Amino acid sequence: MEKRYLEIDEWKIVEEGWDPANHMKSESIFSIGNGRMGQRANFEETYSGNTLQGSYVAGVYYPDKTKVGWWKNGYPEYFAKVLNSVNWIGINISVDGEQLDLNACAVSNFRRELDMQHGLLSRSFDVKFTNGKTLRIDSKRFLSLVRDEVGAIAYSFTPVNFEGAVVVTPYLDFDVENHDANWEEKFWDSVEERVAAQKGTVTAKTKKLDFQVSAAMRFEVAEGDQHITLYPNTDQREKFVSNTVELRVEQGKTYTIYKYAGITSSMNYKTKDLALAADTLASEAMRDGFDALYEEHANAWLEKWSTSDIIIDGDPAAQQAIRFNIFHLFQTFTGVDPRLNIGPKGFTGEKYGGSTYWDTEAYCLPFYLSTTDQSVARNLLIYRYNHLQKAIENAEKLGFTNGAALYPMVTMNGEECHNEWEITFEEIHRNGAIAYGIFNYVRHTLDRDYLHEYGFEVLLAISRFWAQRVNWSEARGKYVMLGVTGPNEYENNVNNNFYTNKMATWTMAYTLEVIDELKENHPDAYAKLVEKTHFDEETETKEWHEIIANIAIPFDDKQQVYLQQDGFLDKDLRPASSLAVEERPINQHWSWDRILRSCFIKQADVLQGLYFFEHQYDKATIRRNFDFYEPMTVHESSLSPCVHVILASRIGYGEKAYELYLRTARLDLDDYNREVHEGLHITSMAGTWMSVVQGFGGMKIIKEKLVFEPLLPEGWKALHFMLRWRGAVLKVNVTHSTLKVENVSDVEAEFHYGPHVHRVAANGEIKLELTK
Amino acid sequence: MEKRYLEIDEWKIVEEGWDPANHMKSESIFSIGNGRMGQRANFEETYSGNTLQGSYVAGVYYPDKTKVGWWKNGYPEYFAKVLNSVNWIGINISVDGEQLDLNACAVSNFRRELDMQHGLLSRSFDVKFTNGKTLRIDSKRFLSLVRDEVGAIAYSFTPVNFEGAVVVTPYLDFDVENHDANWEEKFWDSVEERVAAQKGTVTAKTKKLDFQVSAAMRFEVAEGDQHITLYPNTDQREKFVSNTVELRVEQGKTYTIYKYAGITSSMNYKTKDLALAADTLASEAMRDGFDALYEEHANAWLEKWSTSDIIIDGDPAAQQAIRFNIFHLFQTFTGVDPRLNIGPKGFTGEKYGGSTYWDTEAYCLPFYLSTTDQSVARNLLIYRYNHLQKAIENAEKLGFTNGAALYPMVTMNGEECHNEWEITFEEIHRNGAIAYGIFNYVRHTLDRDYLHEYGFEVLLAISRFWAQRVNWSEARGKYVMLGVTGPNEYENNVNNNFYTNKMATWTMAYTLEVIDELKENHPDAYAKLVEKTHFDEETETKEWHEIIANIAIPFDDKQQVYLQQDGFLDKDLRPASSLAVEERPINQHWSWDRILRSCFIKQADVLQGLYFFEHQYDKATIRRNFDFYEPMTVHESSLSPCVHVILASRIGYGEKAYELYLRTARLDLDDYNREVHEGLHITSMAGTWMSVVQGFGGMKIIKEKLVFEPLLPEGWKALHFMLRWRGAVLKVNVTHSTLKVENVSDVEAEFHYGPHVHRVAANGEIKLELTK
Repeated sequence: MEKRYLEIDEWKIVEEGWDPANHMKSESIFSIGNGRMGQRANFEETYSGNTLQGSYVAGVYYPDKTKVGWWKNGYPEYFAKVLNSVNWIGINISVDGEQLDLNACAVSNFRRELDMQHGLLSRSFDVKFTNGKTLRIDSKRFLSLVRDEVGAIAYSFTPVNFEGAVVVTPYLDFDVENHDANWEEKFWDSVEERVAAQKGTVTAKTKKLDFQVSAAMRFEVAEGDQHITLYPNTDQREKFVSNTVELRVEQGKTYTIYKYAGITSSMNYKTKDLALAADTLASEAMRDGFDALYEEHANAWLEKWSTSDIIIDGDPAAQQAIRFNIFHLFQTFTGVDPRLNIGPKGFTGEKYGGSTYWDTEAYCLPFYLSTTDQSVARNLLIYRYNHLQKAIENAEKLGFTNGAALYPMVTMNGEECHNEWEITFEEIHRNGAIAYGIFNYVRHTLDRDYLHEYGFEVLLAISRFWAQRVNWSEARGKYVMLGVTGPNEYENNVNNNFYTNKMATWTMAYTLEVIDELKENHPDAYAKLVEKTHFDEETETKEWHEIIANIAIPFDDKQQVYLQQDGFLDKDLRPASSLAVEERPINQHWSWDRILRSCFIKQADVLQGLYFFEHQYDKATIRRNFDFYEPMTVHESSLSPCVHVILASRIGYGEKAYELYLRTARLDLDDYNREVHEGLHITSMAGTWMSVVQGFGGMKIIKEKLVFEPLLPEGWKALHFMLRWRGAVLKVNVTHSTLKVENVSDVEAEFHYGPHVHRVAANGEIKLELTK
Repeated sequence: MEKRYLEIDEWKIVEEGWDPANHMKSESIFSIGNGRMGQRANFEETYSGNTLQGSYVAGVYYPDKTKVGWWKNGYPEYFAKVLNSVNWIGINISVDGEQLDLNACAVSNFRRELDMQHGLLSRSFDVKFTNGKTLRIDSKRFLSLVRDEVGAIAYSFTPVNFEGAVVVTPYLDFDVENHDANWEEKFWDSVEERVAAQKGTVTAKTKKLDFQVSAAMRFEVAEGDQHITLYPNTDQREKFVSNTVELRVEQGKTYTIYKYAGITSSMNYKTKDLALAADTLASEAMRDGFDALYEEHANAWLEKWSTSDIIIDGDPAAQQAIRFNIFHLFQTFTGVDPRLNIGPKGFTGEKYGGSTYWDTEAYCLPFYLSTTDQSVARNLLIYRYNHLQKAIENAEKLGFTNGAALYPMVTMNGEECHNEWEITFEEIHRNGAIAYGIFNYVRHTLDRDYLHEYGFEVLLAISRFWAQRVNWSEARGKYVMLGVTGPNEYENNVNNNFYTNKMATWTMAYTLEVIDELKENHPDAYAKLVEKTHFDEETETKEWHEIIANIAIPFDDKQQVYLQQDGFLDKDLRPASSLAVEERPINQHWSWDRILRSCFIKQADVLQGLYFFEHQYDKATIRRNFDFYEPMTVHESSLSPCVHVILASRIGYGEKAYELYLRTARLDLDDYNREVHEGLHITSMAGTWMSVVQGFGGMKIIKEKLVFEPLLPEGWKALHFMLRWRGAVLKVNVTHSTLKVENVSDVEAEFHYGPHVHRVAANGEIKLELTK
C-alpha cells in the first residue's frame, strides 16, 4: 500500500495540497461518469506534467490490430480498445502570455474534492505566474446523470493581486491519443469542425468501424452573476475548435467561465444529425444554466443513494470506501442501454480494453440486482443474449458445431478480443458464469418469463458447448475436460479443473430443469424454441445426463477436499506466508513457469465454485476446502478477496474475513497494487459490495429463499444496507446482537434467519436478536 | 506438395522457363553461402516483382524489441533477428532509359542453375525491352569457400538485335529492410561511403549493438577477353555507392561485367580497419580474376564432397535431394569459427531469427561429426561452453541458483530470445540435448580430453538445473517435473513429460560417470573444476542419485508403453489418418486449444527419447512405442520424419521408413509446406542426412561401438555414404544383399554387424553378405 494521501471523509474524496506525483492517481480516483460517458480528472487548463488524458464515450471502441509474438490459428484479428475521445473540458488560461500550468506555475492551497453524494468534482488552488500575478481558481464539473450526453463546467478565477488582462480559451480537441495504441497510431479522423462566437462543434470518426462522435460546446462568462459580453476570436484546425477571449479583469472580483458540452455518438444518432444534436444539447444546457443542471443532477444522485447506500457505523475509512465503490459502479453503468456493459476500468482508464469480462455476471450482477430496478440486471443479461450468434460463431471457429456457443473472454460487440491462447481458448469457465447469471437473476427476481423469452437459448447453446468440450476417457471411465484455465489464472492448460467441470455439469443440469419448467408452463414457446434451435431434445439431453453422471471431479480422499485440477497434489504445497516479502506479488517477481508449477493461487477457484453453489455444500466441506486453499492463495487478482470474505464469514472466520476485506475495500483509494494511475478496478468494486452485503451482512439465496447469516467485523458497531428483493425494498440493519429488516416498499417480503422464516409486511419492520 | 517445377539432376538444381510465381521459392532454393556469408538468389539487376532480398553476414544480428500481446515477467527484452545486410550483387542494366527488369520486360529462354558440385549459381535468359531491343544475359556468381569474405559475379550480356548504348550501374546498397522487423524500422545506420572509378565502399552499423559491416566493390568490363577502358560516373548517397558506365556495344558481341565484393564485419576486424580490409579483399580478388577465384573455390567444394558425398543408386530424385541437403549444410556452417552456429534457415531467409536452437545438438551434430574434421563438431560444442555464463544467468532469472544453467531456446550470443512462456520457460528439454551433444561427440571421437577441458562444467550446470527443476511429490512418493513442453510442441505445460524426465535423469547419470572418469584419470583437473564451480560433490551427487532412482516415469502397464506425459491416456486417442484432408496441417486449421487437447503429435517425443537412447531399449519396446505413437503423429515439424525413419528402419518397417523419408528429403525442393519462399529448412536437412545414414544405412553407436544395421528402401539399388570415425574415413556401400566398408584412411577402424566385430585395416576393405 502506498502512503495514504487522501483524507477520510464519509461522503467525499479529498486531496489537500498539490503533489504532482499523485496527479495521475487522482485523475483515476476523481473520475466522473454517468454510464454514457466518463471523464478522468484531467485538468481543464494546460498541464505539461504526467497525465493520462481520458474522455470516454460508452460503446465506442477501436479494433486495434492484434499484437502477438507468435500468431496462433484462431486468434482474433483485433483487440477492442476503450477509446480516448474528444477533450471537451479544455479551457486554457493565460496571463501576460504565460499559460496557467500547474506543472510550471507556483501552486498553493490546492484542494481537489469529489462529492460522491451529489456527483460533483471540484478543485481550487492559488496559482502564481512568473511575474508574480496570482489567480485564485475554483472549478466544478459534472457529467449529468439526467442528461447523459451533457457535461458542464463552472471554472472561476479571481485575480488576487492584479488587474488587467486574462486570456481564456475554451476549446474542443479531438486530436487525441490512446496510450495503449499497439502501433502508435491515432485512432480518430476528422469529419467536420465548425466554430463561431461562444460555440463550436468537432466531429470525428474512428479509422476503422466508422464510429462517429460529435462534441459541441457553448460557453459564457460572468463576473459574479453579471453576464459579460464577449468578442471572441475563433480558431479551428483539423479535429480542433476554440474561442479565445481577452477579459479585462479587476482585482478581487471573480470571473466564471460556464462551459457546456453536448457529446453524441453514432451509437444513438444518424451521423448526419450528430453535430446538430450535440449542439442542441449544449445550447439547451446553457439555456438552463449551470445551477439548474446541477440541481437536477444532484437530485438524481440522491435518488440513487436512497436505495443503495451502505452505512458502516464505527469505521469511517470503510464507510468512505464502500460509498466510493458504489459511486463508481453507478458512474460506469446505469443499465438503461443493453448494448453497454461494465468494463474492468469503467471510464477511468484504457487498460484491458474491451467492455465485458465474466466479471459482469460473476461479480457485478448481484450488486445491480440488489440496488437497482430489475430491468438493469435484465439488460445485462440481454446484452449476452444479443451476442449469442457471435458466441456461436466464435465456437465454430474453434471447431464446435450444432449451435454450441463460447462467449468471448473480452468483448465489445460479442466478438472475442483476447489474444493469449491459454485465456482466449481455454479460460472457458466464463461460459458457465453467463449461465449462472441467468440462474441468479431468475432466483432473485422470479422473472421466470425471462427463461422462455431469452434465457433458454443461451443456456442451450452453452450446454451444447460443454457437451462437446468434454471427452470420454477410456482409461479412466469418466468424462474429462482437458486443457482449460480456471479462474485461478496461475494455472494454464490443466485437466479437469474442478470449477470448470462443476460449472459445465451444473449448466447442463440447470438447462434440464429449465426445459422441464418450459415444457410444463410454456409448451408453445418451448416448441418454437426447439424448432428455432434445432434442438434434438432426446439425444442431447440423454448425453447431458450421461456427462453429469460421469464427469471426473478431482477429489482427495485423504484430506476430503476437491482438487483444483488433476495432479494438484504433485505440487510443492506450501503456504503463501512462506514467500519472502520481496517476492510478492509473485507475478511481478517470478517467471511464468515458476508461478504455474507452484501451488500458489491467484484468486478463488475451487472456492469460487463453493461460493456459487453454497446451497449444495455443507459448512464442513466449505471449511475443509477453505483451510486447504486459502493459505496458498496470494490474492493477486482484485477479484480474489471478496469471495474469501464471504466464505470466511460463513464459516465463522471473522478475523480472516476482515483482514481480506481490507484488501479489497480501499484497493484503489490506498493504491494497494500501485497501479491506480492506470484506472480504477471497477468490477472488483462490486466484489467489495458483495463482501459487505453477502459476507458481513450474510445475505444469500438458498433454494430461492432469502437468508441472512450476518457476522459483523468486531470494530463495526452497525452495518446498514439496502436490498431490492422481488419488488420489495429492504433496509437491513445489522449489529453484533440484532438484525433489523425494514420494508420500505408496498410489497411484502420474507426472509430466513436460522431455522425460521420471517415475513416483513409492506412498510413493516422486523427486529431479531442474533443467536450466538 | 506444390507441383514440381525444378528438374531432376543428380548434381544440379535446374529451373527452366520464367514464372514469377516461383521466383521467391527459387530465391531460397538457389541460395549460395560459404559459412561466413550467404546470399539469396536475388537478381543482380532491378526486379520490381515480389522478392525477399537477403544478404547475410554470419554472427551479425539485430536485437529487435520483443513483440508480445501480454508481457510476462521473465520475457527477454529482444528477439535477435538475422539481419538483411548490404546488397553487394546489384548491377542495374538499362537500354534507352529502360531498366532491365524481369517483372517488366519480355523474358524468354530463362534458365537458373545451381551447380552443387562446384558451388556456382548461374542464370541465363533473353530479355526484350519495350522498343524491341533484345539482350542475351548470362550471369554467374559464387561466394568463395576459400576466401570467405569474397563474392564474385560475372554478368554477361550480348545485344542480340541492335548496336548502341547499354548503361550498366554496379552498386552497393546498404539501405535495406528486414521483412520481419517488428516495428517496421530499418536496422542499419550509415557510417561512411566512398566511391571512385570502378570501386566503392559502404560501411554501416546496426542501430543497436554497433555491429559494423563494410562492403567494397571493384569491377571491370570486358568484351570477350578484351578489357574495356571505362569512364564511369560515380554516385553516392547515404548507405549507397555506384558507378554508372555507358557502353557502346555491338550486335552479337558479349560484354561481361566482373564484379568483386569484399565484405568484412566487426566480428573479425577493428572498426577502423573494416572498410580498408574489405577493399583489399575486393582488389585482390579482381587482381586474381574471376576464373582463378572460381577454380580455387570449385576445388574446395570437390574436396568437401570427397568425404561427405552420398550416392543413391536407383532414385535420381532422392540423389538430387540428399546432395542438396549436404550442400546447404556446408554452405551454412563450415565449422571454422566457434562463435557461429546453424540457424534454422541458415543464410536463406529471416524467419525464426536467432542462430541456434536445440536442432544443432540433436540433429546437426551427427552430420558434422561424420562428414568433417572433428574440430568442426568440437567448435559447435565450444559455442555452448562459451555461453555457459549466460545460461547460468538465464536460469537465475527464472529463480535457479548455485550455478544451474538453462540454455536458451533461441539465441545469437547466449541470451534467450524466445518470447512465448510455454517455449521460453518450459521447453527445457533443450538443456538435455546440449548434454547429449557432449556425450555424442565424445563417444564418436573418443576425444575424452574435451570433458575436463570444457564438457564437465556444462554437464554440471545442466545437472544442477534438473535437480532444482524437479520437486518431490508427497502424494506420489516420486520426484516429478511439472509444467514443461516436450519436443512435441502440440502439448504445453504438461507434467512428467517422459522425454524431459528421461533427459534429466540421463544427464545426471552421465555427469556422475564423467565425474568418476575425471577423478580417475584427471584428478588435478577435476579438483580445479570442483573449486571453480563450488561443487559440493557429496551433497549434490547424493541428490542426483535420489532423483535418478525416484523420478516419475509415466508408463501404461496395459499397453506397456511409456506415456508422453501424465494423463496422456485421458485423451481421445485416434490415428492421424482419421483427420480429414482439409483439416491438415492441423496447425493451420485448428485453434491451439484443440491441438493441445488432441492426441496428435507434432514431432517425435517419446520416440525421440528411444532414438537417443536406443542402446538402453530393446527392439520390442521400440516397436510397441512406435506402433502406439507414430500413428498419432502428424509430422508437422520438419524435424519429425527423420527420427521416425531411423526407428522404423530399425524395427523392420521399411515401407513406413521410406514413406516418411519422402516427407523430409525433398521438403524444400518440392515445397511440401508451401513456405520455401521464406527460406530453407537447414537444420532439418541434417535430419535427412540422419535418415539416410542412420536409418537406411543403419549406422549407430552402441556402447561406444560403431554398428551397422542397414535396411535399404526397395527401390534403391545401392547406397553409398562416407563416415569419419575416430580418425578413419570410411566409405560405406550398402546393397540389398551386401555391406562393403572401405577404409580410405591410414587409421584402422572397427565396426559391428550382427553379432560380429570387423576390423578394417588402413586403406583396407571388408565386404559382407547381409543376413536376411
